[in-house]
Amino acid sequence: MGHTARDREKLLLRIKRIRGQVEGIQRTLEADGDCFVVLQTVAACRGALTGLMTEIIEGHVRDHILDPAEEPTAAQRKASEQLLEIVRAFLK
Amino acid sequence: MGHTARDREKLLLRIKRIRGQVEGIQRTLEADGDCFVVLQTVAACRGALTGLMTEIIEGHVRDHILDPAEEPTAAQRKASEQLLEIVRAFLK
Amino acid sequence: MGHTARDREKLLLRIKRIRGQVEGIQRTLEADGDCFVVLQTVAACRGALTGLMTEIIEGHVRDHILDPAEEPTAAQRKASEQLLEIVRAFLK
Amino acid sequence: MGHTARDREKLLLRIKRIRGQVEGIQRTLEADGDCFVVLQTVAACRGALTGLMTEIIEGHVRDHILDPAEEPTAAQRKASEQLLEIVRAFLK
Repeated sequence: MGHTARDREKLLLRIKRIRGQVEGIQRTLEADGDCFVVLQTVAACRGALTGLMTEIIEGHVRDHILDPAEEPTAAQRKASEQLLEIVRAFLK
Repeated sequence: MGHTARDREKLLLRIKRIRGQVEGIQRTLEADGDCFVVLQTVAACRGALTGLMTEIIEGHVRDHILDPAEEPTAAQRKASEQLLEIVRAFLK
Repeated sequence: MGHTARDREKLLLRIKRIRGQVEGIQRTLEADGDCFVVLQTVAACRGALTGLMTEIIEGHVRDHILDPAEEPTAAQRKASEQLLEIVRAFLK
Repeated sequence: MGHTARDREKLLLRIKRIRGQVEGIQRTLEADGDCFVVLQTVAACRGALTGLMTEIIEGHVRDHILDPAEEPTAAQRKASEQLLEIVRAFLK
């Protein structure tokens, strides 16, 4: 998956952190823990997944849609940065 | 704005419908109307804005990032369709 | 709608600002303006609608679900604040 | 956590499914798998987390905010159902 191979370590770090959050939610549920704590962790975990998503989308746009090998024009690169700015604003 | 000139009528129809919803919310608030009705209209209106957003993003990707004049490869077109599928799933 | 009558002026200010944004989007579309500007305004407008939503939900929870007349317990008030904290985190 | 003890089995089933999705994402990243597959799984996983969230919020509102022991009025129960309808619409 090209762009994510390059940034694979960073993405793996993110998903491992998300996995830790999910395991924490499971433990709290199993221990019949506090409802609010679960809600907070679920919200944080969803935010982390969105962050992962945004990072993969960035790589996908730059490497697979724009594709450096195809020598994108300045206008295409600019349009691509604009899209990513909107995606980040929408998915924050 | 290229792609939206082509589809401008459709986008204008969408934004006019959204404008009608916003004016409806304002009228209900001014009339001290039912809180739940306001919440429902706000939720519908937000959904309609998201739909508008998605449609403009589709045009932006196809016309400004991919840009037919630059003769995108099949791989670039496929990557572009994949991104839009994800955007639609995320912003629904 | 009780709680929003009390805060009606604030809510009306919000919806009028949103209406101005929607009218701005319509004008930009009619003038065949810049696609990125439209996307930015749509994103801002959606955020403003979410803010309006959150504020109405807060009033709804405090006045209609909790209802001061029913003399909610401290535990109910705390649970209510927790919910609103989660809603704010989720809808930001 | 009261309401989730009652529905704990259902919630545990949900979080275990989410955990499986997260582990799948990690495996695909480690194997340098297809970018689009990762994006699809992340989107599905985020949707599943939102579903879990919504279910916990429902229990929280009914058991901790409304609290059957406090004998909520019909109006409070109705306001509560309205809120949950809006939350479901917003978080779908």
